Amino acid sequence: MTEFDLIYQLINTQSIDRPDVKTGIGDDCAILTVPEGYSLAVSMDTLVNGVHFPESVSAFSIGYKSLAVNLSDLAAVGAIPAWITLSLTLPSVDENWITEFVKGLFTLANKHNVQLVGGDMSCGPLSISIQAHGFVKKALLRSGAKSGDLIYVSGNIGDASLGLSSYNGEATITEACIKRLNEPEPRVDLGIALNNYATSCIDISDGLISDLGHICKQSHCGAAIYLNDIPVSEEYKSYYKQQIDFSDAITFGDDYELCFTINPKDRSAISELSKKMAIDLSCIGSINTTNQIQCFDHNNETVNILKKGFEHFNE
Amino acid sequence: MTEFDLIYQLINTQSIDRPDVKTGIGDDCAILTVPEGYSLAVSMDTLVNGVHFPESVSAFSIGYKSLAVNLSDLAAVGAIPAWITLSLTLPSVDENWITEFVKGLFTLANKHNVQLVGGDMSCGPLSISIQAHGFVKKALLRSGAKSGDLIYVSGNIGDASLGLSSYNGEATITEACIKRLNEPEPRVDLGIALNNYATSCIDISDGLISDLGHICKQSHCGAAIYLNDIPVSEEYKSYYKQQIDFSDAITFGDDYELCFTINPKDRSAISELSKKMAIDLSCIGSINTTNQIQCFDHNNETVNILKKGFEHFNE
Repeated sequence: MTEFDLIYQLINTQSIDRPDVKTGIGDDCAILTVPEGYSLAVSMDTLVNGVHFPESVSAFSIGYKSLAVNLSDLAAVGAIPAWITLSLTLPSVDENWITEFVKGLFTLANKHNVQLVGGDMSCGPLSISIQAHGFVKKALLRSGAKSGDLIYVSGNIGDASLGLSSYNGEATITEACIKRLNEPEPRVDLGIALNNYATSCIDISDGLISDLGHICKQSHCGAAIYLNDIPVSEEYKSYYKQQIDFSDAITFGDDYELCFTINPKDRSAISELSKKMAIDLSCIGSINTTNQIQCFDHNNETVNILKKGFEHFNE
Repeated sequence: MTEFDLIYQLINTQSIDRPDVKTGIGDDCAILTVPEGYSLAVSMDTLVNGVHFPESVSAFSIGYKSLAVNLSDLAAVGAIPAWITLSLTLPSVDENWITEFVKGLFTLANKHNVQLVGGDMSCGPLSISIQAHGFVKKALLRSGAKSGDLIYVSGNIGDASLGLSSYNGEATITEACIKRLNEPEPRVDLGIALNNYATSCIDISDGLISDLGHICKQSHCGAAIYLNDIPVSEEYKSYYKQQIDFSDAITFGDDYELCFTINPKDRSAISELSKKMAIDLSCIGSINTTNQIQCFDHNNETVNILKKGFEHFNE
């Protein structure tokens, strides 16, 4: 099988056929049309074997997660997903692996009406780059938080960190937590809905503290976080038995929930939205002018969080 | 230095600041506007260490070539380049390497008013994915060639193959040929100009025979090629002394010239364009209904070309 056969094989297994794709896979470029009145939102993320996923993860999960992290970036700006391009680097042609990878990728793509419009395939150490394109009228940015705004987190965080610990020999972790790590669900619909309320937004990929840090830096503000309000799952709570250790939940990342800020006047609207969408939206603190992120425990005493968010290169 | 510092360092060294970039690097997505009446042309290519460039190539050249191959795809559809995103996977943080890489990347980007609007950086085996975005009113596709159309090649081909042989111990190759391999010049302006004439177009990345094969396949036609009309450099000619071997020139690829077809009535317009742009445009054959590519020598006898174009995975 040649590189070209493989690429054509990829084309033919996706059923999505969007009218805004004039020319899809198979030419030098994809030719695409952005609807009038919308801007284009573009995100690119690469997953490297052994860095972004454990070596033993299934090809299906790798395909799923490669797209999930990119759709999560679109969600963070409130964009409607549309197209992706894929660059796949593989050590060899393993038809079963590729078939499962594509199945994982398209399972998530089809959920969100996302069409694969271009790609590239190379021989080399396993890595996957996906670029996702979406449409947005007014993007949610990291730079819009104001002192006094409330800070929210969607769903719960920390399960991905438990998921990873199962790869480090921790046998008690459930499949649900492992799936949070390997096949995260990007908060696409929530991001679009938040466009009406959020003053700033980011997806939690590198850890809450690190990602909220980006909001604070770009909004020139600080934040106070109340650890007891951090939403964690029942499994996360019971894992820690007596006393919940929130440090993994707020520093590990890979949860792909949204962290966003709102003007306090919109508090009830957010409660309504939470009910309507059946997604927990938890207020975990507020924005202030301190230029730092402070964490408080249930006694309102400051807690030092030593772990930092995920960084690829540490000195 | 952290991953984030590196990314910010990348931002600050580019001077291009396009008005159609609402939000560039530093948020979850880049937010971009496509001008009214234009479609978006999108291309993505990955360069892997040891596969797409020799291990010893300079970081400057790697940066330059990573972008060149993508701008060449935009050229092939006749698009005006606008933005790129970059995913850089590096085994370690080497400030000198990154600085030189960025210098190479931005040297070419700045020539074409192309802005880096987003990116991702990971730790892993060296590889570079770039996605390029451009604007086009009516794209040049591979599928428009008709029987009777003339086939053209821009500039000359084959020097990149000589360039590579210098890495295999061939000492006589000049710097100019090595540069053709490592820092190819994408035919951006030519691609835009060809929009008025070409019935199909492709860039020669995988070798003329292979790339022209894509045009034939997608246009449901065949081609006759006259080897003596294949444009090669003086260096290429003198390298082969007595008898020029065209097989490398037409199968090696990596030249990033354009191969295009025109209706014969536009022959003089193409001559004019060639003079005006000071780019050799050579007619090398014509499109027919044979559904195969046949090569003819100076005696009009068919020549079998055994080498195929570059493919990443061969059985």
